[in-house]
Amino acid sequence: MRVLAIALSGLSLLMPLSLLAAEPITPISAPTDIDSNKAEIGKQLFFDPRLSKSGFLSCNSCHNLSMGGADNLTSSVGHGWQQGPINSPTVLNSAYNLAQFWDGRAADLKEQAAGPIANPGEMAQPHSVAIQVIASIPGYVESFVAAYGDESITLDRVTDAIAEFERTLVTPNSRFDQWLLGDKTALSGEELEGYQLFKSSGCVGCHNGPAVGAALFQKTGLIKPYATDNPAQGRFAVTGKESDRMVFKVPTLRNIELTYPYFHDGSVNTLEEAVNIMGEIQLGRTFSDLETGKIVAFLKTLTGDQPNFALPQLPPSTPATPQPDPFGPKPSQARS
Amino acid sequence: MRVLAIALSGLSLLMPLSLLAAEPITPISAPTDIDSNKAEIGKQLFFDPRLSKSGFLSCNSCHNLSMGGADNLTSSVGHGWQQGPINSPTVLNSAYNLAQFWDGRAADLKEQAAGPIANPGEMAQPHSVAIQVIASIPGYVESFVAAYGDESITLDRVTDAIAEFERTLVTPNSRFDQWLLGDKTALSGEELEGYQLFKSSGCVGCHNGPAVGAALFQKTGLIKPYATDNPAQGRFAVTGKESDRMVFKVPTLRNIELTYPYFHDGSVNTLEEAVNIMGEIQLGRTFSDLETGKIVAFLKTLTGDQPNFALPQLPPSTPATPQPDPFGPKPSQARS
Repeated sequence: MRVLAIALSGLSLLMPLSLLAAEPITPISAPTDIDSNKAEIGKQLFFDPRLSKSGFLSCNSCHNLSMGGADNLTSSVGHGWQQGPINSPTVLNSAYNLAQFWDGRAADLKEQAAGPIANPGEMAQPHSVAIQVIASIPGYVESFVAAYGDESITLDRVTDAIAEFERTLVTPNSRFDQWLLGDKTALSGEELEGYQLFKSSGCVGCHNGPAVGAALFQKTGLIKPYATDNPAQGRFAVTGKESDRMVFKVPTLRNIELTYPYFHDGSVNTLEEAVNIMGEIQLGRTFSDLETGKIVAFLKTLTGDQPNFALPQLPPSTPATPQPDPFGPKPSQARS
Repeated sequence: MRVLAIALSGLSLLMPLSLLAAEPITPISAPTDIDSNKAEIGKQLFFDPRLSKSGFLSCNSCHNLSMGGADNLTSSVGHGWQQGPINSPTVLNSAYNLAQFWDGRAADLKEQAAGPIANPGEMAQPHSVAIQVIASIPGYVESFVAAYGDESITLDRVTDAIAEFERTLVTPNSRFDQWLLGDKTALSGEELEGYQLFKSSGCVGCHNGPAVGAALFQKTGLIKPYATDNPAQGRFAVTGKESDRMVFKVPTLRNIELTYPYFHDGSVNTLEEAVNIMGEIQLGRTFSDLETGKIVAFLKTLTGDQPNFALPQLPPSTPATPQPDPFGPKPSQARS
């Protein structure tokens, strides 16, 4: 889509201003190349707490698909009620992320999916046990045979299936996308003014493309330092470069109305405050209440169609399935 | 249905043995008098972790509708990762329970729904705060107006809506019900022999009617004491009568294949072991492996159609919504 946008942008003088290519934000749409067998397994696994040591936490616990793909908490609850170190980013549209996690330490959705399962502070299940659990469940084995051709159940296949499901979690048809696609009645005057401000103020420098973000890393506190108690240092933890301190993946703004609280430390509860802080520390700009209100009105037009599928039913365990262990000794704490 | 069965049983000599009324178990079917507006609110509330102090636990956390309406744990995880005192019973077909909770301390689904929200060991949210949360969410307010006629959001209405949703959680069309309704090919010979044994051994004395249980209280350990470390004393906690010690609600056997582990203490992982223990302590009978296998084969025919609806989408909070507090001081422990 970005290639298309670039290719078309040279033509924009010949075309109505409303043409997609003229805008730095482009519509989002569901992928058409989904392997539905794999995605169906991935959907079950995403909701299956048996991937966790406790048998109580699933991917959906912290990336709740009833709540914008996040948990709406400052930081998440992990095994044994451990407090997570960072705000859970939404899984919606996460296929558009240039890399996964706030610090981009996982290259893609498949690599990401393996992380929380085994992280002692999250689902706390050794991968070997998680795989043993899934492989002990005949309903899963049948599905893996259908999707992958044989009975082999591996971490590679489990995370591949979860990633395939997550690729489906795209939220098209937001009012803003309707407007982009030519329905000029889709936005109010205030929302449109908010969008113009969003562009003219420079927000769009980082928040652009189909995901309205997610396509680059950027320093939090470009103009003024970001005040936080959270010790996370972003990309620095991955690269060790001083220049990567406080550099985080720019989050998508799609469905931002649903994915409060905001920022990597989850310290901000309202869009108004988030817009004001971003203005100050990233752009060196103080928005008036009127301006902030307009930008927030625009941001709320980015809420798209939420995931719409039947609650998955999970195949039952067998006597061969390793037992969940919610109340055993806690494993040692670890970073997320 | 039971009245019908009794009324018809006098006629059974005149009718084919396959007639419903001739069997002590009757088919189950979804109610036809559901208020869909109320049930739709109840469905959202059932999945909404904002009813809990932490913002992390919902009704569905322990009565997981992807997992037979239970959590498949010995006992549940409550606020702050507290260990629950008893096994979570399935919410499926719970409208058929003569009373709610293992000890029957709540008269009906509506009364039950209020319990875990405020229980300090479960969701730990004072009712007043839970109501304030729901009332602060415009999406809920709109729905309550549509369902109840005005904006008033009270504990009475919240629990009424949850109960109305729970009334829909009926699982018809099990293979056993197909057989009851006349499809003689629905059961294998082994399954049918298991059913005959289930009747002739006396299991059916407690496990009968549409829910295959749930219609009476009975002592666990009628013939021999039940060996358990769990301190729960059943109805005694409600009535204070010595004769009610270890008297629990007879659980439904519908979907029993999905609702492991078994018994009020959740100590038994397999149906085989559960059948053997019940034989010993309730009936004074030792089943052979062959007999146990047949009864288990029958029990697995009681799995019906599981809930089938789109994952609910929850309306977003507002700045006026009381904040979740997952990591504040833990409230004092309490019984479930």
